[in-house]
Amino acid sequence: MNTATTPSAAAVPAVDYVHGYSPREGQRLGDQADTLAQLLHGGTSYPPGSRVLEAGCGVGAQTVHLLRSSPGAHIVAVDQSEESLARARAHVTDLFPAAPVEWQRADLLQLPFADAEFDHVFVCFVLEHLADPLTALAGLRRVLRPGGTLTVIEGDHGSAFFHPDSAYARAAIDCQVRLQEAAGGNALLGRQVQPLLAGAGYENVEVRPRTVYADGTRPGLVDGFTRNTFIAMVDSVRDDALAAALTTEADWDRGIADLHRTAAHGGTFHYTFFKGVAVNPF
Amino acid sequence: MNTATTPSAAAVPAVDYVHGYSPREGQRLGDQADTLAQLLHGGTSYPPGSRVLEAGCGVGAQTVHLLRSSPGAHIVAVDQSEESLARARAHVTDLFPAAPVEWQRADLLQLPFADAEFDHVFVCFVLEHLADPLTALAGLRRVLRPGGTLTVIEGDHGSAFFHPDSAYARAAIDCQVRLQEAAGGNALLGRQVQPLLAGAGYENVEVRPRTVYADGTRPGLVDGFTRNTFIAMVDSVRDDALAAALTTEADWDRGIADLHRTAAHGGTFHYTFFKGVAVNPF
Repeated sequence: MNTATTPSAAAVPAVDYVHGYSPREGQRLGDQADTLAQLLHGGTSYPPGSRVLEAGCGVGAQTVHLLRSSPGAHIVAVDQSEESLARARAHVTDLFPAAPVEWQRADLLQLPFADAEFDHVFVCFVLEHLADPLTALAGLRRVLRPGGTLTVIEGDHGSAFFHPDSAYARAAIDCQVRLQEAAGGNALLGRQVQPLLAGAGYENVEVRPRTVYADGTRPGLVDGFTRNTFIAMVDSVRDDALAAALTTEADWDRGIADLHRTAAHGGTFHYTFFKGVAVNPF
Repeated sequence: MNTATTPSAAAVPAVDYVHGYSPREGQRLGDQADTLAQLLHGGTSYPPGSRVLEAGCGVGAQTVHLLRSSPGAHIVAVDQSEESLARARAHVTDLFPAAPVEWQRADLLQLPFADAEFDHVFVCFVLEHLADPLTALAGLRRVLRPGGTLTVIEGDHGSAFFHPDSAYARAAIDCQVRLQEAAGGNALLGRQVQPLLAGAGYENVEVRPRTVYADGTRPGLVDGFTRNTFIAMVDSVRDDALAAALTTEADWDRGIADLHRTAAHGGTFHYTFFKGVAVNPF
């Protein structure tokens, strides 16, 4: 998603990556990934020796978690951005100097791999940035061996609701949705993961919601998710939203202020990610 | 919620119960309760011999599940509707002829019980119908012994999203929200459960989302929840929505048709309930 996307938009060279590539954005993505790691990565573990493609690794925020939960797996991490790849490599090598990761610049729609080369494919916060996720999924299926698994994680901004409710806050979120749409993506993709996987020919598709709910009794989540992930993500498109005349300064500021109220005493915040696992048929 | 409410609005005699009291509505509520029982009741079990107040039992849809998960507990089930109570008694006695249930007509805001009379209080799909849920929660705390627990389950219509998305479908759902608001209730209450329980003086408040997600790989849930619970619930307010000029026949029919598309091949549907447990402080 965008709430938790990594700079991995990879496959659409013609459009800008909606979240940008600034160091601050990289930091935000790292923070969020740590907070959400258990929620998102729980249940994902690849056997030692298996070849795993991480398609759209961005700055490596999820690569770190893959390494933690799958020691001994051989990970091939690709992204279309040379800069993201360099940062991912630095970040991962810093934490795991001897990590069995192979870094490669690649376009998701023209993967430079042989058929059935991988045992598993992992795609996190990538499809939401693609103009044609179905074609990308079909391409990933080509490089996945029969019987191998595909894991997809995506958010959905339509799942965000909160107390106190606010039309201004909802409008600010909608700016992000519209900017992502203008860039060829879809910030509401989470709800489509199941039909997309089935439509791309995968079998045994199983999609489950992974819901983040933060209230005053969970201050770490309020800080780590509501403030530092979700609100930071929305606020990062402020200038673009103003430039595109999707909002005014006053409306925007009120929307962000209202979002911050949901992280204050008595506030609550809800967001749902979707995690899908499917098998490439024999 | 309304997606899964029981006719237990109990405490606001001056306004009509938004879902009505028809036999068909009772059947819908029974169906939905069965489908959702595990999701909603998981983790709720009261020890033998404990006295449990079910506040707003409606037609007994949840009472049955309380009896199943807490054999030996003594349940006092109250509702403001004599008719609902009679149906609840018949329904429960049919399934559990010797069930230790005491039925009593009562107004939630004027509970005819002594202070600290109950070990536990259970309230499901009730607060959403009250004009002043905070006062009701304070009254429930009065009859709960110090150290006893309160369990609250509520839905939130703002959590409903689906594929294919549809402005008509969203407008139909919004009719339900506005009718419930006009009747003094709040169909978006789920997100407020935590601040409400804390505000009413309960301690150790713990609220967790319980998310229903239905897609084509889960036909039982598509049928039991999307079609027979949620869409049926929305469609049950058709005449009221037309009478209140909240919609037109054409818009309504398209909204309902679009909701049914989310239950067809390739469709998905998401809804979140909130379950809160809290303790009456010593």
